[in-house]
Amino acid sequence: MNMYEIITKKKLGKALTKEEIDYFVSGVTDGSIPDYQAAALLMAICMRGMNDEETFLITDAMTHSGEMLDLSVIEGIKVDKHSTGGVGDKTTLVLAPMLACCGLKVAKMSGRGLGHTGGTIDKLESIPGFTTTLSDEDFIKTVREHGLTVVGQTADLAPADKKLYALRDVTATIDNISLITSSIMSKKLACGADAIVLDVKTGSGAFMKEPGDAIALGKKMVDIGKRAGKKVGCVISDMNQPLGTHVGNAIEVNEAVETLRGRGSAELRELCLVLGSVLLVMSGTAPDRQEAVSMLSEALDSGRALDKFMEFVRAQGGDASVFDNDALLATAPLSRDVCAPCGGYVKRISCSEVGMASLLTGAGREKKEDVLDPAAGLIVARKVGDPVSAGEKIATVYASDEDRLERAAEKLLEAYEFSSEPAEPLKLIHEIIM
Amino acid sequence: MNMYEIITKKKLGKALTKEEIDYFVSGVTDGSIPDYQAAALLMAICMRGMNDEETFLITDAMTHSGEMLDLSVIEGIKVDKHSTGGVGDKTTLVLAPMLACCGLKVAKMSGRGLGHTGGTIDKLESIPGFTTTLSDEDFIKTVREHGLTVVGQTADLAPADKKLYALRDVTATIDNISLITSSIMSKKLACGADAIVLDVKTGSGAFMKEPGDAIALGKKMVDIGKRAGKKVGCVISDMNQPLGTHVGNAIEVNEAVETLRGRGSAELRELCLVLGSVLLVMSGTAPDRQEAVSMLSEALDSGRALDKFMEFVRAQGGDASVFDNDALLATAPLSRDVCAPCGGYVKRISCSEVGMASLLTGAGREKKEDVLDPAAGLIVARKVGDPVSAGEKIATVYASDEDRLERAAEKLLEAYEFSSEPAEPLKLIHEIIM
Repeated sequence: MNMYEIITKKKLGKALTKEEIDYFVSGVTDGSIPDYQAAALLMAICMRGMNDEETFLITDAMTHSGEMLDLSVIEGIKVDKHSTGGVGDKTTLVLAPMLACCGLKVAKMSGRGLGHTGGTIDKLESIPGFTTTLSDEDFIKTVREHGLTVVGQTADLAPADKKLYALRDVTATIDNISLITSSIMSKKLACGADAIVLDVKTGSGAFMKEPGDAIALGKKMVDIGKRAGKKVGCVISDMNQPLGTHVGNAIEVNEAVETLRGRGSAELRELCLVLGSVLLVMSGTAPDRQEAVSMLSEALDSGRALDKFMEFVRAQGGDASVFDNDALLATAPLSRDVCAPCGGYVKRISCSEVGMASLLTGAGREKKEDVLDPAAGLIVARKVGDPVSAGEKIATVYASDEDRLERAAEKLLEAYEFSSEPAEPLKLIHEIIM
Repeated sequence: MNMYEIITKKKLGKALTKEEIDYFVSGVTDGSIPDYQAAALLMAICMRGMNDEETFLITDAMTHSGEMLDLSVIEGIKVDKHSTGGVGDKTTLVLAPMLACCGLKVAKMSGRGLGHTGGTIDKLESIPGFTTTLSDEDFIKTVREHGLTVVGQTADLAPADKKLYALRDVTATIDNISLITSSIMSKKLACGADAIVLDVKTGSGAFMKEPGDAIALGKKMVDIGKRAGKKVGCVISDMNQPLGTHVGNAIEVNEAVETLRGRGSAELRELCLVLGSVLLVMSGTAPDRQEAVSMLSEALDSGRALDKFMEFVRAQGGDASVFDNDALLATAPLSRDVCAPCGGYVKRISCSEVGMASLLTGAGREKKEDVLDPAAGLIVARKVGDPVSAGEKIATVYASDEDRLERAAEKLLEAYEFSSEPAEPLKLIHEIIM
């Protein structure tokens, strides 16, 4: 077996065997296959595709390319959640304590963000003292004792994905559904959860612009997860405007805490109920989605989820007292309101421009080595479909210097499009696949 | 402009611009574009193709990626010939002196062979004293004084091709007509001849198995050559059995000399007349192909071409006296006849197995650093369509040790297929494109 033959086979549109796929993935992982041969095969895969069996095989090979987390010592049903990423996505912060309140064990490894805003790890680190670096032993201990933990992903999980993704990123071979599936699912499967819910975003602010593409990806990932013997469900949710109202790091933690207090974003609450209900049903914790939503709502409305969040913060070294007496994390010292230049309705909000505005406040990273400003960000006061009057505040930006404030405010205004005709609010949930 | 965008564009099937192609070729040449990005683009080109304009642009960029030979100081019409390669192809050795006798200036840079047998350079070097390494000045001087020269290709011609070919060779991106065209034509165009004839081989022993593919390649190369302002013609010739009868290095020189003496292979003579007539007509030396063939036949039959060959040998340091009194170069000390196991007709001769047999005698190289045996090789006595009786000699192998002799003879017998029914002789010339 050699790479030349494997490349030729895929170039002709033939399906690769388990041996060929294992040879490729292990050769990429140990560096014995040169990048140029891997790049040629990736391009051939992009052009010819992979069938479901091949997609499973490459995912499985990547899953086993490094360390596998063994969560079997944790009693109960271990669950995980993954989002394909969007603007203002702080879902994990609310959902994880809700799930823990319902008896599920949330053992989550999360990424650091590169882009508009930080990732979940960056958001959590904006809480004073909070650490996202736990040893494997402490990771397991925290889940056993508190029912949840969120830590940064260690480098040893699915190393094949790290190498392949880096190569795809510079060879224009990102946009293949089988390669996307294998990249996401190999990391999730290596994390060892019994049940996984995937939040696939669709819209202008998501990688998948069209709902149809997002649904296809969701179905493929659910199929691959089931082939791997896991319970996997998927929710296709909208990303044509930021999720909720807050975008940044500490700012998003604040929205999450407010939602746990029962007064945050209705949209964020809805998404958490839907995602959580999929996990509760798949894990057999609830008989159906309706019952699951009741259980999750009770956890929220009773304040138990809020308490669980504070317990989680303290368990990972964070100072939960910053939230005492309804307090929130401090935002950046300077702020500026963005006002509607005319009356009418919000017709459209460009997610990528909101993301860019957030980046301009200092809340995101352009390069891996950039240091982000945890207190910077923005809050939108008006979303698609909302009526506005001329000069009314539609959003506020927060930053640590005037220049950033100015540029972010300008960019944020550009993100808004108004119309004199009423505009329909956007539907949040496109589809549930389980 | 960056490679990511260029790869994406080609992946989507769009035509690349001159600026994009120049950026790619110069980046490959100077090493600023990493191999993995070049490999991804090459695969996308293989899958999506390039139109005629793109093919011209990449050929032109590769042609100008290094040194360009300036032959303008040579008076008269400078011509060149290229073969896509086959078994027993010693055409240049006969054709070049014929052309020089007709007043054309043959300024040829040739490759060293990697494969079954040596290249033209290896064949010439089997003549004692013959050197194929001339300075640019001596190259020009030799053409001016003697009307012909054949030297090894210097590394400075079309360096982009060298790098791209090496990458294509390991990434399964060889078989694209535009890339093949650019590879062959860039080297030829950099050599500076006014008129070029291409001998595109087709059949089991050629890269292009099907005449249709060979014709398509020939037409594409003629088109690109004309766009570059050159006179270019192409002959599609058969390679379903060895050309002529001799395969090796010194052994092929002997067949060429015998053909120049008027008693070699009729097939080799025919091919030289056809290829030569294309050049004579394109260069305006003859009014039509019929007249051109008369001129070339006269050069052969009068013995002038043989004299010119000997002059050429002496001009490049060779000892022409080895051919005195009808002598020939020595063959390897051991020989063995291969005999027909049954009577009937030769139905088929596998060119690749003949090539393999030649390699087994020691006449070829498996790896670049292998040293070949100039006196080894084989001579076939029967070709497709010939009648044979059981036990009759059909071929002879020549080698320097018994083991090689044994293995080569065995392999050569395997190359032959017999039938009791008469078989048609093979047609040599499939098409002439000019």
